[in-house]
Amino acid sequence: MTISELHVPRLTPARLVDRYAAVRRQTEKLCEPLETEDYVVSTMSDVSPTKWHLAHTSWFFETFVLAPFDASYLTLNPRYAFLFNSYYVQAGERHCRAQRGLVTRPTVAEVFAYRAYVDASMQRLIDRIANDTEHPALPVIELGLHHEQQHQELLLTDIKHVFWTNPLRPVYRAMSDRGRPTGDGFDWVSVPAGIYRIGHAGGGFSFDNESPAHRVFVDEFRMADRLVTNADYLAFIDDRGYHRPELWLSNGWSTVRASNWEAPIYWERTSDGWTEFTLAGQNALELDAPVTHVSFYEADAFARWAGARLPTEPEWEIAAANAPIDGPFVESENYHPAPASSPARDGDLRQLYGDVWQWTASAYTAYPGYTPAAGAIGEYNGKWMCDQWVLRGASCATPQSHARLTYRNFFPSDARWQFMGIRLAGAAKA
Amino acid sequence: MTISELHVPRLTPARLVDRYAAVRRQTEKLCEPLETEDYVVSTMSDVSPTKWHLAHTSWFFETFVLAPFDASYLTLNPRYAFLFNSYYVQAGERHCRAQRGLVTRPTVAEVFAYRAYVDASMQRLIDRIANDTEHPALPVIELGLHHEQQHQELLLTDIKHVFWTNPLRPVYRAMSDRGRPTGDGFDWVSVPAGIYRIGHAGGGFSFDNESPAHRVFVDEFRMADRLVTNADYLAFIDDRGYHRPELWLSNGWSTVRASNWEAPIYWERTSDGWTEFTLAGQNALELDAPVTHVSFYEADAFARWAGARLPTEPEWEIAAANAPIDGPFVESENYHPAPASSPARDGDLRQLYGDVWQWTASAYTAYPGYTPAAGAIGEYNGKWMCDQWVLRGASCATPQSHARLTYRNFFPSDARWQFMGIRLAGAAKA
Amino acid sequence: MTISELHVPRLTPARLVDRYAAVRRQTEKLCEPLETEDYVVSTMSDVSPTKWHLAHTSWFFETFVLAPFDASYLTLNPRYAFLFNSYYVQAGERHCRAQRGLVTRPTVAEVFAYRAYVDASMQRLIDRIANDTEHPALPVIELGLHHEQQHQELLLTDIKHVFWTNPLRPVYRAMSDRGRPTGDGFDWVSVPAGIYRIGHAGGGFSFDNESPAHRVFVDEFRMADRLVTNADYLAFIDDRGYHRPELWLSNGWSTVRASNWEAPIYWERTSDGWTEFTLAGQNALELDAPVTHVSFYEADAFARWAGARLPTEPEWEIAAANAPIDGPFVESENYHPAPASSPARDGDLRQLYGDVWQWTASAYTAYPGYTPAAGAIGEYNGKWMCDQWVLRGASCATPQSHARLTYRNFFPSDARWQFMGIRLAGAAKA
Amino acid sequence: MTISELHVPRLTPARLVDRYAAVRRQTEKLCEPLETEDYVVSTMSDVSPTKWHLAHTSWFFETFVLAPFDASYLTLNPRYAFLFNSYYVQAGERHCRAQRGLVTRPTVAEVFAYRAYVDASMQRLIDRIANDTEHPALPVIELGLHHEQQHQELLLTDIKHVFWTNPLRPVYRAMSDRGRPTGDGFDWVSVPAGIYRIGHAGGGFSFDNESPAHRVFVDEFRMADRLVTNADYLAFIDDRGYHRPELWLSNGWSTVRASNWEAPIYWERTSDGWTEFTLAGQNALELDAPVTHVSFYEADAFARWAGARLPTEPEWEIAAANAPIDGPFVESENYHPAPASSPARDGDLRQLYGDVWQWTASAYTAYPGYTPAAGAIGEYNGKWMCDQWVLRGASCATPQSHARLTYRNFFPSDARWQFMGIRLAGAAKA
Repeated sequence: MTISELHVPRLTPARLVDRYAAVRRQTEKLCEPLETEDYVVSTMSDVSPTKWHLAHTSWFFETFVLAPFDASYLTLNPRYAFLFNSYYVQAGERHCRAQRGLVTRPTVAEVFAYRAYVDASMQRLIDRIANDTEHPALPVIELGLHHEQQHQELLLTDIKHVFWTNPLRPVYRAMSDRGRPTGDGFDWVSVPAGIYRIGHAGGGFSFDNESPAHRVFVDEFRMADRLVTNADYLAFIDDRGYHRPELWLSNGWSTVRASNWEAPIYWERTSDGWTEFTLAGQNALELDAPVTHVSFYEADAFARWAGARLPTEPEWEIAAANAPIDGPFVESENYHPAPASSPARDGDLRQLYGDVWQWTASAYTAYPGYTPAAGAIGEYNGKWMCDQWVLRGASCATPQSHARLTYRNFFPSDARWQFMGIRLAGAAKA
Repeated sequence: MTISELHVPRLTPARLVDRYAAVRRQTEKLCEPLETEDYVVSTMSDVSPTKWHLAHTSWFFETFVLAPFDASYLTLNPRYAFLFNSYYVQAGERHCRAQRGLVTRPTVAEVFAYRAYVDASMQRLIDRIANDTEHPALPVIELGLHHEQQHQELLLTDIKHVFWTNPLRPVYRAMSDRGRPTGDGFDWVSVPAGIYRIGHAGGGFSFDNESPAHRVFVDEFRMADRLVTNADYLAFIDDRGYHRPELWLSNGWSTVRASNWEAPIYWERTSDGWTEFTLAGQNALELDAPVTHVSFYEADAFARWAGARLPTEPEWEIAAANAPIDGPFVESENYHPAPASSPARDGDLRQLYGDVWQWTASAYTAYPGYTPAAGAIGEYNGKWMCDQWVLRGASCATPQSHARLTYRNFFPSDARWQFMGIRLAGAAKA
Repeated sequence: MTISELHVPRLTPARLVDRYAAVRRQTEKLCEPLETEDYVVSTMSDVSPTKWHLAHTSWFFETFVLAPFDASYLTLNPRYAFLFNSYYVQAGERHCRAQRGLVTRPTVAEVFAYRAYVDASMQRLIDRIANDTEHPALPVIELGLHHEQQHQELLLTDIKHVFWTNPLRPVYRAMSDRGRPTGDGFDWVSVPAGIYRIGHAGGGFSFDNESPAHRVFVDEFRMADRLVTNADYLAFIDDRGYHRPELWLSNGWSTVRASNWEAPIYWERTSDGWTEFTLAGQNALELDAPVTHVSFYEADAFARWAGARLPTEPEWEIAAANAPIDGPFVESENYHPAPASSPARDGDLRQLYGDVWQWTASAYTAYPGYTPAAGAIGEYNGKWMCDQWVLRGASCATPQSHARLTYRNFFPSDARWQFMGIRLAGAAKA
Repeated sequence: MTISELHVPRLTPARLVDRYAAVRRQTEKLCEPLETEDYVVSTMSDVSPTKWHLAHTSWFFETFVLAPFDASYLTLNPRYAFLFNSYYVQAGERHCRAQRGLVTRPTVAEVFAYRAYVDASMQRLIDRIANDTEHPALPVIELGLHHEQQHQELLLTDIKHVFWTNPLRPVYRAMSDRGRPTGDGFDWVSVPAGIYRIGHAGGGFSFDNESPAHRVFVDEFRMADRLVTNADYLAFIDDRGYHRPELWLSNGWSTVRASNWEAPIYWERTSDGWTEFTLAGQNALELDAPVTHVSFYEADAFARWAGARLPTEPEWEIAAANAPIDGPFVESENYHPAPASSPARDGDLRQLYGDVWQWTASAYTAYPGYTPAAGAIGEYNGKWMCDQWVLRGASCATPQSHARLTYRNFFPSDARWQFMGIRLAGAAKA
């Protein structure tokens, strides 16, 4: 597969200019609540400094668009390629990930200047290729914008970890009212057995790991019509869920014991009851809101305790196939999942997108016939297909234009710092 | 599922007595080449001491058969339950795995006495329940025998690691002549698309993870009719396979760099060329023999380099469905994989069983509808379904009566000390 | 010993006000070349963030002066006591050292505001107790100022490590001309055997570890009249000093091998020869300048290679007893050791103070009769008397008013990030 | 210094033959209570397998005596030099210490055969050089015998750790009656200030680190006339000694917290009170016996709690200068320290030798003018002079002929597996 075969819709140049500007501006908007100091640090191996996110997303355009497609382009600083390459081995030597949070220069101001420089160069390039709808740079630009949207989500979850690590527990932004929760239970939605087609086909952008579309056989199953709530999860904790080895995978149990897990990462038990650290500060636990920041191990143990299981990724995609792509995305500016509203119609699945990514029971491996792109860009997804699980849906930190039915997110079994939650599934009712 | 629902054939008591004695005797026979000192140590976290294998397999019968089904049974030493429980959390406190190789008592002689004591007790129990073909102990005894056969294989691969760790490189047993290799290349065997049924159904023993039998849709594919040889693998090494990051999964590449891998674990480059440590000592590399002791990372990178891929486990089982269960098993007493013979008929798959376990592209997860047994025995397989890959077939260290079509072996991506090898697959020829 | 028994001269209140202001201002002056981002990070376990140094030195006055001696004092933020206590267990719970570089708030501006708040409170306290020359706060204030001067030196050596860790290698401040080196060799200065009195007695401030003054017997010895130079040290490197185990302590040799040491920490071999990273950037190695940033292991191995040894601390103090306390201190604003000038008179020791601290052959243990102060302040020095070596003199990062003959600096065997160098000694000439 | 300058008395050949045979036989006698399995393992990094001790002491004679002084000597197995060299870098490549406990071959029987082979060769050599009292091999043979005696002590303390690690807690040998304890308190013995000569001079064997004898000035001090008992130490524990940071060195406090120390290593609190694991099994704590298996950290904290301090090594040697070298050595076959008897005369120091090594407040550094021997043998003591403390006296595991006044034993601050105890000292009474 060549880059030009990426599943990318052709935008008109005018719309591409607008979209490029909007995505890039959104990244910077997310930085507005931050102090200069907040941009610098990495509080654990998964967390990158904000200024690294700002620079790395610019480096992506520089490396994969400007360098190959603009012969006149000169980099602002040749050392930046070393500092801001993440993991693209074929794109050259790079700075050690463990040291990202130790590098105080370039300063935040210099990084913003670097962004501006890349943006101006990109603007010129887009103008120049405006009339060539087959220009090979176009799909790479589209990929770069989706790449930047992924980093917008990481920027938020990373800064959440940075703020939580600080004993002063700073607030990123106060939460607005999110409407009335229903407080209801949930219903099962059933799907009959059959051969289904899953994966990306046809129009619109997708990452290479969503292809090729292909047939799967799935037996009859059912899926919960809403997410697991904090109240549901509390019942698991109160039933000694974190102290019953028979509920856990072996690695999960080892992790629970070694890390003294007693609750999701941002929960804290106080004399006034459970609280949860959010980007709006440390708040009383909201019982109707979806549980979030749980690992695969916890999702799996909870499901076992509940007498259910996690859905596989084909099941999730099949069940969600006809649902609209809406929900409380990052544009709602709450940065936290919201309680479910009442279902519009019987049998509708609620909270598919925009609250929390939903762990599936499917290991992240290649779709039959999957081939990554040639060259460094092919390292984007393929080389991570090992010891990770697929998550489906989207979260409150995902941009709406970034979400879609076939999206395959993936993280290791013990990751908890993303907005990750739980949807139950099970065999068809006897 | 209760234990009595395990997929276990009913043996007549007479045959069960014989089979029990044969399996137990075979374990001890494998110890004959060892010195007392060899039984004691653990050379890495995966390796258990021989005397631990001898005792643990006896503990299994004591805990899951004698304790529940023989009210008069008294254990030889109540501390043994602590020392020889492996990972059954629900069966009580247990000794730390990391310390298994530090415990010099009970002595080897005392461990053999423990075995004899358990065997005598088992003999009495089997005699007593001889006429009750529905007795609930019977399926557990059968499970215990298959459990013991798994440890026979581990005993050999563990002692191989112990001997290799020793700069004196002791010999376990000299290798006998293994016949003429063909030196041929290989052919592809094609299988058409369709819905297939895989997993264990019907007669004979199986582990719970092979169930339930279920339908899968598989697209047209092809599979190599023999294993990858040392000569094949040398071409990969000589083509700088261990130095080209684009061939590797990201975790695999990190492992290669961190561990300085340049070849399979037991290979050594000398001034006279490559040698390989075997249970018959350090020998010149046999070019026609299957490559063995490679990790999933290496199998996956090799396949990518070869322009192919690994088979999925449904593909392997579908392709092998009608093949006989034969090959050079442990009974051949060579303890090393053998070169392929010429195929009996065109289109026959060779070397399916008895040389090396074959890595598949399938992560080890539950079959749809899988439910482990209740209680401690349910920890046997289910709690390991995380961050491991399925291997299919059987190896030169597997007892013949232990191998079957639906067998799901599993190990993590970096494991190399088992007899693990590579079979290629690919999409149907264009 | 009570705090009031600390060896502290009585200053007039007016002079104390001036001295307090001068020391505090100097700390802030050292920060002028820094960007906000530079204040935040810790690049290894020994390095604290600049803003932590700024806050911790203020916390010291708050905790040991304002809290006990000003009943009306209210802290600016009660959480700061948790964040900025270093290691005083008896002063309460404290933030984990390993996380110092992960805390982005309080911001740099807030930390400066905290300093100003403490300074205003201290000003009021000093005014109030102006006429009471026996006030128990006075010796603690003096201790706090010397404590702050120690952190001034650490601030510089820590920021040097931060800048060196950055691939962009920022410059702190350009170096001014430092005059003509002599390029000469060195002479030995001999001292006869006898009973000598060492340690602090009489007037002026000292830390408790310099007391009590006491008698020692020392045999005849000689000491080099200047420091070991880069040229001297290059000869050791060129003679394969880092590759000859017989020159090294066993732990030193392990460290050399495990850390791949081939030169002092900030040296780098380029195609144009050796360079050295300084606070003025990466420069060509200055051959006449003292070697610096070597560990005890390297100092000891060099001395052995040179057929000499390091001086003991009694020897150093006895030999230096009548020398003036001058040299290129931090006030010279070069932040790097300078080549030796010609000796003023035959037999004068050169470079005793102000270039590099000098490793001695004496382990850091208590002087006979040593007793630390009661309470948290007693943790200042005493609890560190284990597995460290004494260094004598002072460095280019030491304030002149902080240096004195009896000063006992101390670091572990492998520490290299301070301005540490080598002076040779030996038995009397045969 | 050459090897022939080692402080070694000249033995007549006949006496040397006897002494060689006696020392070598004693090592093997210590092995009599062991099973073959016990010889193989290493239960922590400080512990070597018994069979390694047996082989290494033989390798010492082979390498430093037979190889240089017997041209006809052929080694039994050239790989043994690799396996059984401990830390003599200049003597060639050696096996990694961490793997000593993983090597099952040579077997125990083969190691005894190796010893017999070396002994026969040594016998021939000694016979040959019988009449040459100046033969350069003689001092090295004497050194080898003292080396072997050190390993006899290690063999016992190592096997004690091996047995204790085993949940079955095997018994090495039952303890015989050790007489009546006095149950008395203790007296102080005072020593006046002055210049004293310490270190080895004149006749008899000594290690190089005991030289040269030299003058030291010591102020008036006093030393306890018996060791600290278990009853004394229990008072420290009961006074929350392990939970009061102000009593501890900083590194000591970190170790206490990180390792959850609550008592000496072999103590265990049961429902019936404190017990202690000994080579005679797990016994009730004997209150009058000396506390043993405490680290320097614990000895130092105990002394501080008791309002005293540890003696320096000059103080210990000066105070003990005229005492006889007797006490319950290994020949008493109790392998555990004994309660003090009543003092023979007022002012006599009791328990100087033969119960436990006594921690001093002196770091292990070179005596003034110390020079190790040239070549590999010079690595014996000198390269360890870093981050260790001196212990004086001798223990219940020391051979009587191995003990002497000037002996400098040394271990790091956290070592506890040797028979290490506490004697208090202090300034002269006011």
